[in-house]
Amino acid sequence: MDTQAASTEQGRRTRDAIVEAAADLMYRNGVAATSVDKVLNACGAGKSQMYHYFKNKDQLVDAVIDLFLERILANQPNIKDLRTFADFDHWAETVLDIHRGPLGPLACPLGNVAGELGDDEHMAKLLDKAYTQWESYLANGIVSLRDKGEVRADTDAGRVAQTMMACLQGGLLLGHLRRDLTPIQDSLAVALTHLRGFEATAS
Amino acid sequence: MDTQAASTEQGRRTRDAIVEAAADLMYRNGVAATSVDKVLNACGAGKSQMYHYFKNKDQLVDAVIDLFLERILANQPNIKDLRTFADFDHWAETVLDIHRGPLGPLACPLGNVAGELGDDEHMAKLLDKAYTQWESYLANGIVSLRDKGEVRADTDAGRVAQTMMACLQGGLLLGHLRRDLTPIQDSLAVALTHLRGFEATAS
Repeated sequence: MDTQAASTEQGRRTRDAIVEAAADLMYRNGVAATSVDKVLNACGAGKSQMYHYFKNKDQLVDAVIDLFLERILANQPNIKDLRTFADFDHWAETVLDIHRGPLGPLACPLGNVAGELGDDEHMAKLLDKAYTQWESYLANGIVSLRDKGEVRADTDAGRVAQTMMACLQGGLLLGHLRRDLTPIQDSLAVALTHLRGFEATAS
Repeated sequence: MDTQAASTEQGRRTRDAIVEAAADLMYRNGVAATSVDKVLNACGAGKSQMYHYFKNKDQLVDAVIDLFLERILANQPNIKDLRTFADFDHWAETVLDIHRGPLGPLACPLGNVAGELGDDEHMAKLLDKAYTQWESYLANGIVSLRDKGEVRADTDAGRVAQTMMACLQGGLLLGHLRRDLTPIQDSLAVALTHLRGFEATAS
């Protein structure tokens, strides 16, 4: 490895370490309670390294939200390949499995940030982008069903995906709070029923 | 008014001022970011007054959660008198009206606190209690429908109420984030459809 590549690789690792430390602290304590100093303390990086990669805390939060979404999607890989109603059922099972562990049900990291929003327009935009991307996989699946004529031609894929996400988010909120899988189970079932409500009927 | 009564009245007002200042700050900035010092600064009360009414910040948070719930219920008074399917529809309209204003859709103050939970078991219990009380009005309405034979006899009122609350919470989260009433509208519609799914059919 030449020096340039090594330094780039090293730089990437430093940047990742900063974002991962920030993500960990922000997941546990919230965005507001996580100062840049605490992040640097946790990962052993210096201020000059931080400000080499991120202009300010906002940019770091941006990277943390990207990482949260990346991890969420990595945990439910089949969301990227929804084509049939059965695929949606399997996806819901995958989501439930994530929350079945001894530490579950877990809080949704994006939902946590949403709870901190207040009137922060910048953070609202970042979160909107992340949720829209997450929902886009559901919407793609709905478009796929629509293309095959399995849901009605007038089905608004983005809007149905948004409603399904709302169900999931509310289920996660109450499920985590109550340490109970039932709210997640029930609200995912409601989301799937909502989708089935658009099923094209043979006429 | 005798001195005792005056001092009690004055005391109640001081306590209320502390709780209201804390509620305001916690709604805007979160629980973690709201120190007792900031609360006292905002309402002009002293530390000795604070610790006369509240043993610690936890007890203050407890009172704030009570106040959040009280305000939520005051904004949707018809939730306390749900007897028919139409009553549920009117309740949903009332909720939508709250979020139709120029500042809406608003974040749910309880949902915000839930986003901050982490593994704080104490706060989880307080929030669970508040949500359970909120849901109990929906559950009472479902019991009322069940007593009249309008929903099936095996309908689990508490569980249906919980699922309806999950829908509402997720809708509020996305609605506030996107400054759009649609997610709240759609997820309340899904909640009402879920309830209608238990409708007793003439046999």
